[in-house]
Amino acid sequence: MPDTSLLETFPAPVGGTPDAPPIVIEHVSDEFTSLCPVTGHPDFGSVTLRYAPAPPPDGVCVELKSLKLYYQSFRSEGIFYEAVTNTIRDHLVDLMHPAWLQIITHWKGRGGIRSTVRAEFGDVPDEWRAR
Amino acid sequence: MPDTSLLETFPAPVGGTPDAPPIVIEHVSDEFTSLCPVTGHPDFGSVTLRYAPAPPPDGVCVELKSLKLYYQSFRSEGIFYEAVTNTIRDHLVDLMHPAWLQIITHWKGRGGIRSTVRAEFGDVPDEWRAR
Amino acid sequence: MPDTSLLETFPAPVGGTPDAPPIVIEHVSDEFTSLCPVTGHPDFGSVTLRYAPAPPPDGVCVELKSLKLYYQSFRSEGIFYEAVTNTIRDHLVDLMHPAWLQIITHWKGRGGIRSTVRAEFGDVPDEWRAR
Amino acid sequence: MPDTSLLETFPAPVGGTPDAPPIVIEHVSDEFTSLCPVTGHPDFGSVTLRYAPAPPPDGVCVELKSLKLYYQSFRSEGIFYEAVTNTIRDHLVDLMHPAWLQIITHWKGRGGIRSTVRAEFGDVPDEWRAR
Amino acid sequence: MPDTSLLETFPAPVGGTPDAPPIVIEHVSDEFTSLCPVTGHPDFGSVTLRYAPAPPPDGVCVELKSLKLYYQSFRSEGIFYEAVTNTIRDHLVDLMHPAWLQIITHWKGRGGIRSTVRAEFGDVPDEWRAR
Amino acid sequence: MPDTSLLETFPAPVGGTPDAPPIVIEHVSDEFTSLCPVTGHPDFGSVTLRYAPAPPPDGVCVELKSLKLYYQSFRSEGIFYEAVTNTIRDHLVDLMHPAWLQIITHWKGRGGIRSTVRAEFGDVPDEWRAR
Amino acid sequence: MPDTSLLETFPAPVGGTPDAPPIVIEHVSDEFTSLCPVTGHPDFGSVTLRYAPAPPPDGVCVELKSLKLYYQSFRSEGIFYEAVTNTIRDHLVDLMHPAWLQIITHWKGRGGIRSTVRAEFGDVPDEWRAR
Amino acid sequence: MPDTSLLETFPAPVGGTPDAPPIVIEHVSDEFTSLCPVTGHPDFGSVTLRYAPAPPPDGVCVELKSLKLYYQSFRSEGIFYEAVTNTIRDHLVDLMHPAWLQIITHWKGRGGIRSTVRAEFGDVPDEWRAR
Amino acid sequence: MPDTSLLETFPAPVGGTPDAPPIVIEHVSDEFTSLCPVTGHPDFGSVTLRYAPAPPPDGVCVELKSLKLYYQSFRSEGIFYEAVTNTIRDHLVDLMHPAWLQIITHWKGRGGIRSTVRAEFGDVPDEWRAR
Amino acid sequence: MPDTSLLETFPAPVGGTPDAPPIVIEHVSDEFTSLCPVTGHPDFGSVTLRYAPAPPPDGVCVELKSLKLYYQSFRSEGIFYEAVTNTIRDHLVDLMHPAWLQIITHWKGRGGIRSTVRAEFGDVPDEWRAR
Repeated sequence: MPDTSLLETFPAPVGGTPDAPPIVIEHVSDEFTSLCPVTGHPDFGSVTLRYAPAPPPDGVCVELKSLKLYYQSFRSEGIFYEAVTNTIRDHLVDLMHPAWLQIITHWKGRGGIRSTVRAEFGDVPDEWRAR
Repeated sequence: MPDTSLLETFPAPVGGTPDAPPIVIEHVSDEFTSLCPVTGHPDFGSVTLRYAPAPPPDGVCVELKSLKLYYQSFRSEGIFYEAVTNTIRDHLVDLMHPAWLQIITHWKGRGGIRSTVRAEFGDVPDEWRAR
Repeated sequence: MPDTSLLETFPAPVGGTPDAPPIVIEHVSDEFTSLCPVTGHPDFGSVTLRYAPAPPPDGVCVELKSLKLYYQSFRSEGIFYEAVTNTIRDHLVDLMHPAWLQIITHWKGRGGIRSTVRAEFGDVPDEWRAR
Repeated sequence: MPDTSLLETFPAPVGGTPDAPPIVIEHVSDEFTSLCPVTGHPDFGSVTLRYAPAPPPDGVCVELKSLKLYYQSFRSEGIFYEAVTNTIRDHLVDLMHPAWLQIITHWKGRGGIRSTVRAEFGDVPDEWRAR
Repeated sequence: MPDTSLLETFPAPVGGTPDAPPIVIEHVSDEFTSLCPVTGHPDFGSVTLRYAPAPPPDGVCVELKSLKLYYQSFRSEGIFYEAVTNTIRDHLVDLMHPAWLQIITHWKGRGGIRSTVRAEFGDVPDEWRAR
Repeated sequence: MPDTSLLETFPAPVGGTPDAPPIVIEHVSDEFTSLCPVTGHPDFGSVTLRYAPAPPPDGVCVELKSLKLYYQSFRSEGIFYEAVTNTIRDHLVDLMHPAWLQIITHWKGRGGIRSTVRAEFGDVPDEWRAR
Repeated sequence: MPDTSLLETFPAPVGGTPDAPPIVIEHVSDEFTSLCPVTGHPDFGSVTLRYAPAPPPDGVCVELKSLKLYYQSFRSEGIFYEAVTNTIRDHLVDLMHPAWLQIITHWKGRGGIRSTVRAEFGDVPDEWRAR
Repeated sequence: MPDTSLLETFPAPVGGTPDAPPIVIEHVSDEFTSLCPVTGHPDFGSVTLRYAPAPPPDGVCVELKSLKLYYQSFRSEGIFYEAVTNTIRDHLVDLMHPAWLQIITHWKGRGGIRSTVRAEFGDVPDEWRAR
Repeated sequence: MPDTSLLETFPAPVGGTPDAPPIVIEHVSDEFTSLCPVTGHPDFGSVTLRYAPAPPPDGVCVELKSLKLYYQSFRSEGIFYEAVTNTIRDHLVDLMHPAWLQIITHWKGRGGIRSTVRAEFGDVPDEWRAR
Repeated sequence: MPDTSLLETFPAPVGGTPDAPPIVIEHVSDEFTSLCPVTGHPDFGSVTLRYAPAPPPDGVCVELKSLKLYYQSFRSEGIFYEAVTNTIRDHLVDLMHPAWLQIITHWKGRGGIRSTVRAEFGDVPDEWRAR
């Protein structure tokens, strides 16, 4: 099952310019798989994580290999698309307390239906809405 | 005929962050077919459902396989494009009472004419208008 | 000549939600032909109709096969591009009294010149301007 | 030389709806050629005319074949890109007194440089600026 | 069920040149649907028919509207992809006795698997193999 | 009805090199329309003519404007796709007695079916087969 | 582990034309996953099966849903790409004894390396080599 | 009128390797215009010249600026597409006596018809046919 | 320096069908870097390995992770593109003694020059030449 | 002027397999400039060098940085496209005595004319002709 203990962080880099706006980070995984809670068949999709870390000195970033292992921990989980999206959002918000964060999942066709689910946290800038 | 008894829901996931904005869910079916009420010939199209569930604790999501079966129940129905779009909108609003919802249907050419019909419910955010 | 008697309507679908916004309907015909009033040679183009029906209980939609036959009635008509566009706009406004309506015609090259003509009625929402 | 006597007009179509907004007309010619006033070598380009006629009863439209012949009258004219654009703008404004008008010329490479020139008249709506 | 009585033919056009090679005809239908014989769920695909009629005076062509109605007669048939392809091949060979014929069906994803099936009759020229 | 009296020819250009191979000429018309002989509804398509004139001194070419008028003479003709293709092939072979000739017609969707028909005359070089 | 007991067949369709060439069948699955036998991390790829059944009366086809379930049985298997490809080839040859068969697997990047593996059986026609 | 006195040549470069195969040269002009001999209206097109010079010591190449001026000399000439193509072929063969030569002209739409004309001289290698 | 001790193999899978043709394996690494032996600056490129293992019982495959580590061992090596390609070819031929093998390297621009180098071993089938 | 003293070579890598076929090397420079010998204006183009070195022990490769400097030595040279191509061919053949070699130059538009020139040496394999 989803295992948040796999997730690790490191301090967000602190810029020399105190008032520089936060960096924006995007990680796209095309290799996500979980199980349908109704049929037990595997679901395949991609997960996009986009976020701005909290301002220094508290800002942290998720470590990439730990993120991969965390995503792999859904492999045998029976869980709806919507819950996958919401769960990852909540786990990563709890982990990083970012300035803002988006989780966007795209799912390959099931019964002829392709799906996309979006979950957000905080004040997502306009230029990232609906992207 | 369109059979709303096929539709099933599950509770929308509740995030650990009480004030998190609602998730946005999109399901695109490229395999919709009904019958023309005038000629009886089959129509072929796609149906896009996009919505945000109601806020917790009342929010629900439509279950994907039940949505597929519901769409299949139009297979032998003689019904105009506009009514297909409006009917699906109403049935899904009745089912989920979402925060907002869009139904967009695209129809392959009939007599050399391609068609698109859009129906909405609630306060659709600007970034989703005309998309 | 353009024959409005061919046009038929059916009541716009009435949603179960009284305050639902009107549906938006688009029909694109790639097979329009009329005659040049100056040279008598055939012109070829496409016609896009986009509209929102009047609110219930008066709202009506144009029936698709009747629209095709109406377009075909321009086949032997000598008429300028601008008048084609304006005439279709007026005929369909008279027929449906819609909330708003756009007619956009694209014409293949004549003498090395490609043309587009747009006519509107009512309060076209911003997201549909110049599209 | 540019010969405005070739230009002909016809009355803009008058809609049955008195307060209907003006139609918007666009003619794109991909076959424009004139001569460079410095070297005498031919220039090749395209000319886009976009305009809204004056409101009835004074509104007129330029007739398409006459527009083609007028453009052809630049064939032996030694004239700068900028002057071509401005001259066509002025000639067509004098001819039609439109509500607004745009002339946009694109020129193929000369000495490795591609060029675009825009000229306008009247109150061009926002949705057509820079297009 | 597949209803060959719907199929109609007309004599292949006879050219004024006795030794002219046969014409080659291709009809592509993007709107084919049948039912899965195992699950009963609808399948969606396209069907390409490519053939050369028999030489005169026996050559016939399938009439297009009758072909459409014949394809529609699979709508409620539970039948495998392979049998759809083979059946259409046999029915059309029986109907037309063509010089050669190809049936190529493409099927949308089922359980994450997209499929293509090809069946042929007679001596298909090299330039049409695997196309 | 198709009117071959509209067709005009001019002598194929004779090169200064007696043994030069024949020129190859291709005319593509995207604006062909005729009527369905079954339903009376208009059909829309494109016609590609590709040929090599007969060797001098007998070789002739079809004049382009006369070809356009000849194509326009199908406008009110009820005729199958296959017969359009074959008829144009025969008429142009009769007119020009070319070394070889191809007619390829593409037709927009009717009842969800797109069609292509090819007819040939003489010894079409390999590099032009199935193109 | 790979479970061939999941695989089911049905008789290949028998055409009415005794000497008709065999049909050619292609199934593409974009949702294959197994485990790396060295690291235990998941691998993701696609599997293309292309084959011609044995001639009647012995020819059989693999049933699509059973194929999906068979592919899913690799989900927890630690196995090299090459062995996946070879194993599927052997299992399906054992199951169907086809006239010929190809298995082509594409694998997403691992350590920055993308891979493709091909295995064949029988006399694959030239037009399908290296495709 | 086409003025061959404008054409200039320079010796084809002589390689240090006596038996080196001839170079292959291609010049594409997108800015060709002449007049229709029937209507007097301008035609617009492109001209592709591809050739191998004669072997040394007689081989010559056409100088590029002189080629441009030669092409410009068609600007006021009433001449058919076919004759343009054949004339340029003959003029350049007379000028250069090349090993082989191709002239390919593409013409923008006239009356809805786009045209291509090809003329050749000598033994054009297979890899350049129909390109 | 390139360290062949990093490379590991495993036995090529042995099919149940003794006369089955060998599998064909392709690994594409987009993340190769070495140093320019002249300037010391880093070069970036991709390496494609394509091969068929030796027939059983001697056939082996290179293990993917070991291949990645082997490629990484070029990171501090000053070496020409041509030598990289040749060296990898020789090392992998020595390692696997395959039926045939290709190494294709693509290199990003250095001083405005992009490069590709190909090296082969054994009898590469025609369908893989120049690909 | 073109300065061959800038060119340097290094021994072609010698494979451990004595009968291995020669490697094939391709260098594409997008940044070539010389001067028009008629007008003195700069020409811009790309140069593709493709070759197989002579067999060992005599085979050499051109060093990349020296090739860049050699190309740069054309910057102030007034020279025709054809001579650029031929000259580079001869210089590099003299330098390397390769098994075979191709030089392909593409030139940006001059006076509306784009050009390509190809020169070869030795027995170029079929798969590289006209590429």
